[in-house]
Order: sequence, then C-alpha cells, then structure tokens
Amino acid sequence: MIEYRNLRIALLGAGNVGSQVARLLLENGRELADRAGAGLELVGIAVRNPDAERAVDLPRELFTTDAQSLVVGADIVIELIGGLEPARTLILEALNSGADVITGNKALLATHGAELFEAAEQVGAQLYYEAAVAGAIPIIRPLRESLAGDNINRVMGIVNGTTNFILDRMTTLGESQEQALAVATDLGYAEADPTADIEGYDAAQKASILAGLAFHTIVPIESVYREGITGVTLEQVEAARRAGFAVKLLAICERISADGAPDGVSARVYPALIPSTHPLAAVHGGKNAVFIEAEAAGDLMFYGAGAGGTETASAVLGDLVSAARRHVIGGPGVGESHSADLTILPIDDIITRYNVRLDVLDKPGVLAAVATIFSEHGVSLETVEQAVEETDAATATLVIGTHRATEAALAATVSALADSDVVRSVTSVLRVEGS
Amino acid sequence: MIEYRNLRIALLGAGNVGSQVARLLLENGRELADRAGAGLELVGIAVRNPDAERAVDLPRELFTTDAQSLVVGADIVIELIGGLEPARTLILEALNSGADVITGNKALLATHGAELFEAAEQVGAQLYYEAAVAGAIPIIRPLRESLAGDNINRVMGIVNGTTNFILDRMTTLGESQEQALAVATDLGYAEADPTADIEGYDAAQKASILAGLAFHTIVPIESVYREGITGVTLEQVEAARRAGFAVKLLAICERISADGAPDGVSARVYPALIPSTHPLAAVHGGKNAVFIEAEAAGDLMFYGAGAGGTETASAVLGDLVSAARRHVIGGPGVGESHSADLTILPIDDIITRYNVRLDVLDKPGVLAAVATIFSEHGVSLETVEQAVEETDAATATLVIGTHRATEAALAATVSALADSDVVRSVTSVLRVEGS
Repeated sequence: MIEYRNLRIALLGAGNVGSQVARLLLENGRELADRAGAGLELVGIAVRNPDAERAVDLPRELFTTDAQSLVVGADIVIELIGGLEPARTLILEALNSGADVITGNKALLATHGAELFEAAEQVGAQLYYEAAVAGAIPIIRPLRESLAGDNINRVMGIVNGTTNFILDRMTTLGESQEQALAVATDLGYAEADPTADIEGYDAAQKASILAGLAFHTIVPIESVYREGITGVTLEQVEAARRAGFAVKLLAICERISADGAPDGVSARVYPALIPSTHPLAAVHGGKNAVFIEAEAAGDLMFYGAGAGGTETASAVLGDLVSAARRHVIGGPGVGESHSADLTILPIDDIITRYNVRLDVLDKPGVLAAVATIFSEHGVSLETVEQAVEETDAATATLVIGTHRATEAALAATVSALADSDVVRSVTSVLRVEGS
Repeated sequence: MIEYRNLRIALLGAGNVGSQVARLLLENGRELADRAGAGLELVGIAVRNPDAERAVDLPRELFTTDAQSLVVGADIVIELIGGLEPARTLILEALNSGADVITGNKALLATHGAELFEAAEQVGAQLYYEAAVAGAIPIIRPLRESLAGDNINRVMGIVNGTTNFILDRMTTLGESQEQALAVATDLGYAEADPTADIEGYDAAQKASILAGLAFHTIVPIESVYREGITGVTLEQVEAARRAGFAVKLLAICERISADGAPDGVSARVYPALIPSTHPLAAVHGGKNAVFIEAEAAGDLMFYGAGAGGTETASAVLGDLVSAARRHVIGGPGVGESHSADLTILPIDDIITRYNVRLDVLDKPGVLAAVATIFSEHGVSLETVEQAVEETDAATATLVIGTHRATEAALAATVSALADSDVVRSVTSVLRVEGS
C-alpha cells in the first residue's frame, strides 16, 4: 500500500450536505487518497452545537465550535455553513493562510464573489464551487474549462428543484400552486419558509454565478432581474399545456449582440413558456438541468439532481480530489477568468417573445384596436387566437403570441392595453423561451 | 492590451474537425489568449496534400507535409489525423519532447491508451482527449474531475450519432434500416463505408475510454463486447415501441459487485430496449448523450452534438485553453488515475434483463414447455404475452420478458429453445436496460 502525504481537511458545517461529506470522506478515505495522490485527513468539523442531532453518526471528537482555529493550519477548507457571515470572513482567512477553499455557498458567491476570487488570486490559492449550482450536476467545470475555447450565446437553467417540482405537479396532476407547495413541504423539498425558492432568489444567485462563468464577466446579484412563480396560476399552466408549452422557472444568461439591442449580457430569472419538445420541458419533478447554446458546440444539456445531501456531497468531494491533486502537483490551478468584462444589460433592453392573454369586449372592431396598440409600440403579432373558455357573453378572451420585442416595448404595450376602453383586463403575460 | 508570451501550437490534420480548429484559432485568437493567459500561435498544419480542397480557407503558408519537424519545438500538439499510425508515433514524439498533446483519436486511445498515458506521465506532460468521446459534449472532464470523489456504478451512452439517427428514423418514421441508412448517407451522417458505425466499432472504442475513466481501470478495446445494429429489424423496433420501449445502440460500462456475479467491470456495446420514459429514449436524430449512475450523485445525463466539425472543434479548443493555462501556471495537470485496476468481466458474466420473441406451435402445453426450458436454465420469467401479429394458423408468437439473468444462462436458454420440438424459431433476442 502506498504511503501518502496527508492533507489536513477542515470542514465548516455539518448540516444536510456537510454531514454526508464527512461520512463519505471517512468511509471512502483510502479510495479517494488513491485518486488524489494524497491522504485526506478530516481534522475537524466546526459546528455551532456539537450535541445537535444529525442524520449521520460522526465521531464526537471531530466536532469543535471554534471555526477560526480549525481554519488555521488546514490545507483545504470546505465551507458548508451557508449565509454571508461568518462564511465570508472564514473563507477569506482560509485563503489568506494559503488554504484552498471549497464552498457550496451560492448566496456568498453571488454577493461577494469578486472579493473572494480576488483574494484567492492574490495568494495563489483556489476557490472551488461545483456544489453551488445545480447540486450534483457537473456544470462549473464544463463551463470553466471544457467550453473555454468556445463562445456561449445563452444558458437556460432549471436550477431550483422546489419550483420545478411545484410547476411539474401543476402541469401533470392539475394541482393548484398551493396544493403542490404543500406536497413539496411535506416531502421536504420545500423549506418551512419557501420564499427563497418560490420568489426566485435562489435561482437568481445561481444565474449570477452561471453568467459569470459563461461570459467571463462578473455579474453581481443586484444586476440579475428576478420574478418568482407565485403569480403563476393553474389556468396559465393548463392554457400553456394545451398550446404545446411547459411553464418552467428559468435562469437565463444571455449574450446579446445584434437585433438592434445594445451589446452586453443579461442574467434574469422568471417563469416562462418553453415548447414541450424542448429538452428542458422533459425535466420533471425536483430535477435540475442546464441547457447551453454555444457558437461552435451547438446545444448541450446537463441533467441531474439539483439538491440533496449525498448528491451535493458528490460535487464537494469532486472538488476536494481536484484541490488535493493540485496540492500534490503544485501550480495555482485554473483560476477565474473575467477577461471579457462585458456590459450587463437591464431587463428593459432584453428581447424575447411573449404570450399575452386579454379579456376584451366581445364586439366588432376590438381585435383591430388591440392590434393597433401592439403595433404602435413596435411589438408585432405572430399569432392571435380567441380562447374557448367560457366567460360572460359580453367578454372574449384573446391569446396573443408576439414576435421578438424588447421588455420595454412590451411593458409599454401592456400598460396601454390596460388603459384601453376595449380591454377589460390583461390576465396573463408570460415570456416564451427556447423556440 | 496585455502582451502575452506566445505558445507554439502544431496542428496535425486539416479534415472536418482540424480545419475548423484552425479557423476558430485564427479568428478568435485574441479572445482565447485572454482566457488562457497566453498567446496561441498556430505555427503549422501538417497534411498529406496541402493543395487538397478544404471546407475552410486557410493560409497556404501554414501547411506542411513534414509532420515530424512540425512536432519538434511545439509547446502543444493537436492530433486530428486519426487512425493508429502515424498518429501514435507522432504523439509519442511530441510527449517525449515535452509538449502537451490534444487528440480526438478514439481508436488510438482505445488501442494504445495505456502506452500513451504512461509516456505522458514519464515526462510530466498531459494528454487531453475531450473530443474523442461524444464530440462537443463535455464528458471527459466531468468524469475525470467532477465525479472523482464519487463511485460510478454505471455509464450508458448513446455515443454514435449515425446509428442513433438510423434507429430514430425506424422508430419515428417507420423506415426500414436500409432506407434510414440511405438517408443518413445522403445527409453525410454516415460514411461511404458505414461499417465502423453500424457494427458498433466506433461505440466500442468510446466505451473503452469511458470505462477507463469511470472505473479508474484500463479497459482495452479487446475486452469490450460488441454487437452492431445490422440485426435490428423494423419489426423489432415497432414491437418495442408498442410495448413502451425505444431501441438504442448503447455503450454500457458497469461496475458489478453483487447479485451472485463476480466482482469487476464490464464494457459492452449492443442494441437494447430502454423504457420510453428513460431520459436516453428522448435523445433523437444524430444527437449523443451519456447517462451516468453514481453512488452519491445519483443519475446524471450529458446531452449534445456527438459529431460535426465545429462542434468537435469546440471540445479541442477547450482542451487547448486548459493546456495553455497549464503552461502558464506550471504543474503537471490532472493526470490519469488507474489506481483501481479492477477485473474486466467477460460478456458471459454480465447480468441484465431480456426480451425474447419466439414462434411456437399453437397447441396446448406449449407455454408450459417453453417456461420449463427457461426455468431449467435458471432464467425466470417476468412477463409472457402472445403477440397479436398474424402468422399462420398453426403458429403463435410469444413475447417473453425475463428477470435479471446472466448472458451465459440466457444463451443456453436460447440454444435449448431453438432445439425444442415446440419452438419453430427464436425470432428476436434483445437486452433490456435502464429499468
């Protein structure tokens, strides 16, 4: 048996993911050492309460409440406590002491990523974060390395399992959003306070990270446009399904460079219609997937579990083996590339297609009046249908599909429609992606 | 503008992929340099005939017929000439002179991989081969790095676009294999001599490479079991579709460690039934996908273009940026891990499920006789149906689904069935995967 030099691994946090990382590290240590070319010695686990009950039985002597002391002298620090502080300070301390850091902390990366990457570069340390986006799915490394020689035009991700679970049940079982959320909560897919998921905050953090990787540009969380799914009704989902679409909460990162729009990149999160033939439409339940459109490589999709303790632990351990190999062989690793530094566009400049539903007066001339409002605002119509739903006798429901138009033009159109005498109400506006 | 140190890039081959690599390298040189931190100077392109007509217009002065001289003094050599020789000798010369090598040569890796990896390790050079499996799809890096901390139980890949195109047309359009192959040839999906594709040789080479990565074990091409699709009939495809299955040519790499079978790994290629709800069943046309079952990460799938000049060039350029970064920062890179060195099992030891169709005498007692033959050979039945197809009055068609059994047991069963008085003929035997 080969004798390896031991690397000192410090683990911060022993929650759902952290406790599985500790378990796998202790159980598979020898195998991981063979792959890494170094022993991986778990020297301690920093937690707030060592006596708290945990899903995994871990040696009591590994626990400490003194995260700061644990970080000092570690070769590799794994941060899985989440949140901004003390995670940020501990990571900076670890990097400054020369340790490599592995984190699954999407909130921290989306908020303080620039500072952390800068700190790592200053001292020649590495920051790994495969676990921060789409759980078990290897997406960071493919974007950062495999596609480094290509130009990415667009990334569309289903990166939040809770919302996909809810929208999928609404679509396939006809449940209301409230019913589906209740099931998600019962099954542990949704947290007690589901705001971060259903309002799209979680997906927006991931969009920030994905956009940075795809476009070699720092895209801070403040510049990510965000809408959650709370406004999505069963009626919208069912109308979409009848029309051949699925409703998905998408994290979209796009490079825009023609079409009359300003040059730049956009990162945004909103519920959108995608054609039911699109590979993303087949992503069911709590699964995640990231669809990438690259100039040379064409369309790619990465699919798998977006959350879960052992699943996310797999991504952490992959980073750990990478970090350990780097310690054995030397050299500062891949590093971040923000060389492009592109302009980040506001939502108003974004161009896409829209699906608009209107309740209008059921009398001659109304369709022409509605069409005129669209055309006055520079939005051209692709399809107009009268919905078959029963409303009262004096009201008709129009379903309008537009050609590509800016968000600003569409917003002005919707505002003018709402003010129009012939329109009773604009009942639904959804963007259409992936077609 | 930052001044970079220039790296000397030598390109061997200017075919479909090579000429696109040259084009993208010349067109996007500055952007690639920013990402790599080094200038990427294409110093020459070795070809057999510099005057041959090519899809891409490239500077005549770059061409040379002297590959050997070009390799000497290059920092990075890109080998895209294919075949075993002179590719093998040129790569060994490049590695021995200290250059990193990028190759898309699956045949060479499947045949001489061990020798090439050994040569690279000896001199501390790197061998990159993302383009060798599934074209544009990043699959090598995820297996080699992202999943390095996990244990992979199984890899199932649709890794040959030509055969997937043919089987997909048979399934969705009801074309015969001959008709579908003719279309594939017309569209340039199939080569003039399609043997390597339809007989599964191409997929077997990729299975060899995937198995090596998944199981940290060298799996040479000779140990990959292989069946092509020439025996797959439209009748089989249509019967499968009616029963809720798709027929796909699968490259399967499996780790076997229970179930009464010997411990070890298996790599094999054959047409198989997969449930139409399985993500691989939704991989249409010439697309490729690799489905991975990992212990901690769960199920993952990677989907995209498996071939094409620009698509595959994207994978080559990703490797090029990785190689260039390594030159800038130093250190010998990731390296291969064959630490596990598991036993490779022969096809007879493999366990899976089977779908068997028989023409039998249509008289009492036949079903019992058939069931007895299965049970005498240790193969237990899961489903038995009488097919509705019209045959002559004295003949009935039985469709039998088995539980999991070894290939050896199934082969003995089929042989005994063929010899039985009550069986007119065994018309179809297909393996069932992914369920």
